[in-house]
Amino acid sequence: MLKLLKIAMAQMEVVPGHPDVNTATILRFIEEARAKGADVVIFPEMAVPGYFLGDTWEQSAFLRDCESYGRDIIAASKDITVMFGNVAIDWQKKNNDGRVRKYNAFFIARDGELIQPDNMPYPYTIKTLMPNYREFDDTRHFFSLQKLARELGTTPSKLLSPVTLKIRDDYYRVGCLLCEDGWSDDYEFAPFELLEEKEQLDFYVNISASPYTLGKNDKRNRVFGRQAREAGVPLFYVNCIGLQNNGKTVYTFDGSSTAYNESGHVVRTLPEYEEVLTILPLAGMKDMPAEKEADEPDIAHIYRALHYGIGHFLANIHMKKIVIGISGGIDSAVAAALYAKVVGPENLLLVNMPSVFNSATTKGLSQELANNLGCQYMIIPIQESVDHTIKQLEETPMVHLGTGSESHLRVSSFVAENIQARDRSARVLAGAAAAFGGGFTCNANKAETTVGYSTLYGDQSGFLAALADLWKYQVYALAHYMNTTVYGREVVPQGIIDIVPSAELSSAQNVDEGKGDPIKYPYHDFLFRSFVERWQKATPEDLLEWYKAGTVEANLGCEAGLVAKYFPTAADFIQDLERWWNLFTGMAIAKRIQAPPILAVSRRAYGFDHREAQNGAYYTRRYRELKAELLAK
Amino acid sequence: MLKLLKIAMAQMEVVPGHPDVNTATILRFIEEARAKGADVVIFPEMAVPGYFLGDTWEQSAFLRDCESYGRDIIAASKDITVMFGNVAIDWQKKNNDGRVRKYNAFFIARDGELIQPDNMPYPYTIKTLMPNYREFDDTRHFFSLQKLARELGTTPSKLLSPVTLKIRDDYYRVGCLLCEDGWSDDYEFAPFELLEEKEQLDFYVNISASPYTLGKNDKRNRVFGRQAREAGVPLFYVNCIGLQNNGKTVYTFDGSSTAYNESGHVVRTLPEYEEVLTILPLAGMKDMPAEKEADEPDIAHIYRALHYGIGHFLANIHMKKIVIGISGGIDSAVAAALYAKVVGPENLLLVNMPSVFNSATTKGLSQELANNLGCQYMIIPIQESVDHTIKQLEETPMVHLGTGSESHLRVSSFVAENIQARDRSARVLAGAAAAFGGGFTCNANKAETTVGYSTLYGDQSGFLAALADLWKYQVYALAHYMNTTVYGREVVPQGIIDIVPSAELSSAQNVDEGKGDPIKYPYHDFLFRSFVERWQKATPEDLLEWYKAGTVEANLGCEAGLVAKYFPTAADFIQDLERWWNLFTGMAIAKRIQAPPILAVSRRAYGFDHREAQNGAYYTRRYRELKAELLAK
Repeated sequence: MLKLLKIAMAQMEVVPGHPDVNTATILRFIEEARAKGADVVIFPEMAVPGYFLGDTWEQSAFLRDCESYGRDIIAASKDITVMFGNVAIDWQKKNNDGRVRKYNAFFIARDGELIQPDNMPYPYTIKTLMPNYREFDDTRHFFSLQKLARELGTTPSKLLSPVTLKIRDDYYRVGCLLCEDGWSDDYEFAPFELLEEKEQLDFYVNISASPYTLGKNDKRNRVFGRQAREAGVPLFYVNCIGLQNNGKTVYTFDGSSTAYNESGHVVRTLPEYEEVLTILPLAGMKDMPAEKEADEPDIAHIYRALHYGIGHFLANIHMKKIVIGISGGIDSAVAAALYAKVVGPENLLLVNMPSVFNSATTKGLSQELANNLGCQYMIIPIQESVDHTIKQLEETPMVHLGTGSESHLRVSSFVAENIQARDRSARVLAGAAAAFGGGFTCNANKAETTVGYSTLYGDQSGFLAALADLWKYQVYALAHYMNTTVYGREVVPQGIIDIVPSAELSSAQNVDEGKGDPIKYPYHDFLFRSFVERWQKATPEDLLEWYKAGTVEANLGCEAGLVAKYFPTAADFIQDLERWWNLFTGMAIAKRIQAPPILAVSRRAYGFDHREAQNGAYYTRRYRELKAELLAK
Repeated sequence: MLKLLKIAMAQMEVVPGHPDVNTATILRFIEEARAKGADVVIFPEMAVPGYFLGDTWEQSAFLRDCESYGRDIIAASKDITVMFGNVAIDWQKKNNDGRVRKYNAFFIARDGELIQPDNMPYPYTIKTLMPNYREFDDTRHFFSLQKLARELGTTPSKLLSPVTLKIRDDYYRVGCLLCEDGWSDDYEFAPFELLEEKEQLDFYVNISASPYTLGKNDKRNRVFGRQAREAGVPLFYVNCIGLQNNGKTVYTFDGSSTAYNESGHVVRTLPEYEEVLTILPLAGMKDMPAEKEADEPDIAHIYRALHYGIGHFLANIHMKKIVIGISGGIDSAVAAALYAKVVGPENLLLVNMPSVFNSATTKGLSQELANNLGCQYMIIPIQESVDHTIKQLEETPMVHLGTGSESHLRVSSFVAENIQARDRSARVLAGAAAAFGGGFTCNANKAETTVGYSTLYGDQSGFLAALADLWKYQVYALAHYMNTTVYGREVVPQGIIDIVPSAELSSAQNVDEGKGDPIKYPYHDFLFRSFVERWQKATPEDLLEWYKAGTVEANLGCEAGLVAKYFPTAADFIQDLERWWNLFTGMAIAKRIQAPPILAVSRRAYGFDHREAQNGAYYTRRYRELKAELLAK
């Protein structure tokens, strides 16, 4: 009988906060699955409401709306078994915040009726494990199966139970999991094992809303493949595609839905970022060949995530035209090449905004980049405006009305640097973008973002920071990838790749003299990464321990020998470390609080993923001991 | 024996993320308590590390540091019982995120030793209830007593147990609670009741880290007073003072530590925002008179919260000088009067930045305000710079490098409005603040913040948005309160209080003709409040239900008759509603993502308290039905 069962994986785009749109997609896919002879069609977790909705979950009207659309889906299940994720509400009970009880739930409907799991008190399966790390916040809004079990005086093991599908005249037993339920290593118990130990089921389904993170899919294939193999039956992992955000941090959902056969092999992976319905014969999966792992470089995945993410972000805010300030440096050049692919060169306006400090070199490179892209181009010098601002600030009398005394402000060279940066962004780019009918971009990379090497309301501003989750080395890799693979020609000029990174805000940053940023990227990319992305977040204390042991490079993962090269003495090493740590935990947080949304690709992005408080730099007691010891040598 | 016991409540300032500073405070207070003959001294929850630390909890070095300082405190407990909150780490176990096990813990030490609760597996009490709503995120980092009970195969009721204090030759039984443990109404069980039902204890202690929220203290007195009365023994609530933040949202901690006697009466309330140690005789509390409830208007509490919050925020970022752009309107005037009290008029620079659209009226009022404050004052006109920007944008050729064709940007009057706003903030104020050696403020109120009635990198910018949790009516109340009570003279000129609110960015906003903002504050303050602060968050669907029922004003809490006054027809009402809802859930979110930190005073502040995703406006199915019905009439 098994061999007759045809299972459709519906990898749909979920539009967060728009149950109407999502339900229309689901109904369309149900039609398609039925037309193609599928017996079962599986949709992702939270397919109706979306997943990252902020506190929209506190709107009763929104909850009722999700229920209402859920009923439409149930009604559309004639002759086909429909599995889908939605919020489930028990209006008679409360969450721990005192608001109405909400579950992240897995519904199964057929012929207009919900099918109840064996031992659940509701006609749906409730998510057991609630991720509450990184960008996830499940426990803020959803009541878990554990809590429900405690409330009912029972155990999750008793409640968690298979569902019986009756399809034609056959019965199938299915284990239902929601996303994190399949990632149980760090929890007290594993939902998968609780289901598996009771009986041999016919197959498992994991519906997910799993954002893209570099490297996550490989790990999932190991974990989920092992589950299928241990149970000896197929497992269907159905993820959504789309773009969802938590305000400050924006996530692509890559789909990559996967079918694992009873041997734990990947027998089907749905394409990244494509809306697609695929049908598999349950009984035939064991004979399907294991898919070869795609052997693509990380940067190819990153490029796809960025391209998809930018495109969807723009569509969501109804923006079609883009303005980018280009300096002749690598970040803005990569941004320009990337956005040109998304909106088309005719909708892209590059603006070069030279001051007296900008070299002929970078002005020429900017023009070359614009020529390569064939986009719109303007040159708007800022010197006159900057001079006017400085003059106005310095010449306008400041009167102390308490004493009647008069004085004048003085504009230092550092203050003048920031005036330039703000003149470019808040005056020229913001004005040009509004007049062009679009937005302007923030091109900051993750190293700059880490230490706030940027000016607020200057180069820190923009409608989206698409590169702010990429270290500088990844920005270079992206330039290379776009030239060689995306465009197949030199779009980002080699001169831009070769030139020293520089803000060109003063004569101390003259690129023609090889002067530039104070960030030594081959080392600092990795130092900064250890502060934010490392599993055990590194602090100056750890760095000094490693310095003492001679293992800094090994721990950071950067090129050997860099510490000796850049820092002749322990005092130099410590001075550099404290400089950046003070910024990372000081002014840079103030800047990140006001930064544009960041498109996430790494395992830890700024914003809602890596959360922070503006508490000032701190050095542990052990750090101070180590520092004294190293400096005494 | 009881009557001999003297209990010290140490209402200390907790500096988040600085265990060194906090431990020094604790050690100093232990000395003081001992010198004054106290037998027990109680410190707040998380007194060592602080509470709002973002993901600093993932730094092992920081955790070790907290342990290390905790040992110093334990060592300092000679002849005195010290109760304090700290993070407790079980390095052998894991949290559900796979990181090391952390507890939010209540430690009791005497004579250098920790005193273990009867049935706890650790020598400290673990927080049972984990708040995970509003700005709280406890479950992200801390393992609860429930989870521990499940792990150990037991129940919270078995683990949760009193501590026996041996003081001189007497024994006292104490119930230990951490903050939310005392607020159990919405949880499956009440830690207080679990302790109370077993035996009659001698007293209860609730150590807290409870941010100030308007009205919270009254509620606490009802809830905690009832607990003390039911148990028939005293309860000591010890809260910290200070300023803590979650990045975007900044909270004052008001202290207001309270002692409740066995009748449940408040017998001692420690002053708001003051670091103080108070000693009470345990046995004498029942005869102490109940304190009278202070009969102060809300705005007095709000003023204290703002004054304290701004002062501490400035101290944290080492900022002493402030620049405020003043327009002659109420928000900037109230900000100026407030900051003048915090930094002193000599450190306050007010800048008036007229364009051709600014009236002689508002220019005069600005001057009058500055005179009243006796601060520093400048007038920097912006017209020349704005004209230059518009000219540069319109006259610079834009070349399409794909086709070679040339065109020009056109600056519309709307675009020109935003150019003015950015010129003021990002050009003048940011430059002036840097040259003055300080920061400039964002003066947006909560109504403007709700609908993004502001310009990004313009009046939306600044280092702190101190008024962004105040509705417009509260801004007026604050003006009145400062004139009558704080200053005792007319500092905010009556002309500023009387003038129509206006951005004065175009001739359509001419104040002398009575034209101004499109926000009708007497109604929209309350409409917007229902979107964000209402317990069941209101949406357009709710508004139309109320409109249909004629109960809009009653539900919003605004003046009766306003709906009929402002909206002659249902179509007018709906058009207004959709206009603001589209902004609130659209462009305003984009602006809030990049807004400065907001000082919270309400029961729901923007940022980490009211969380949101940039998902675009949504209207439920029921809304669309109601709309059709109302428009068909």
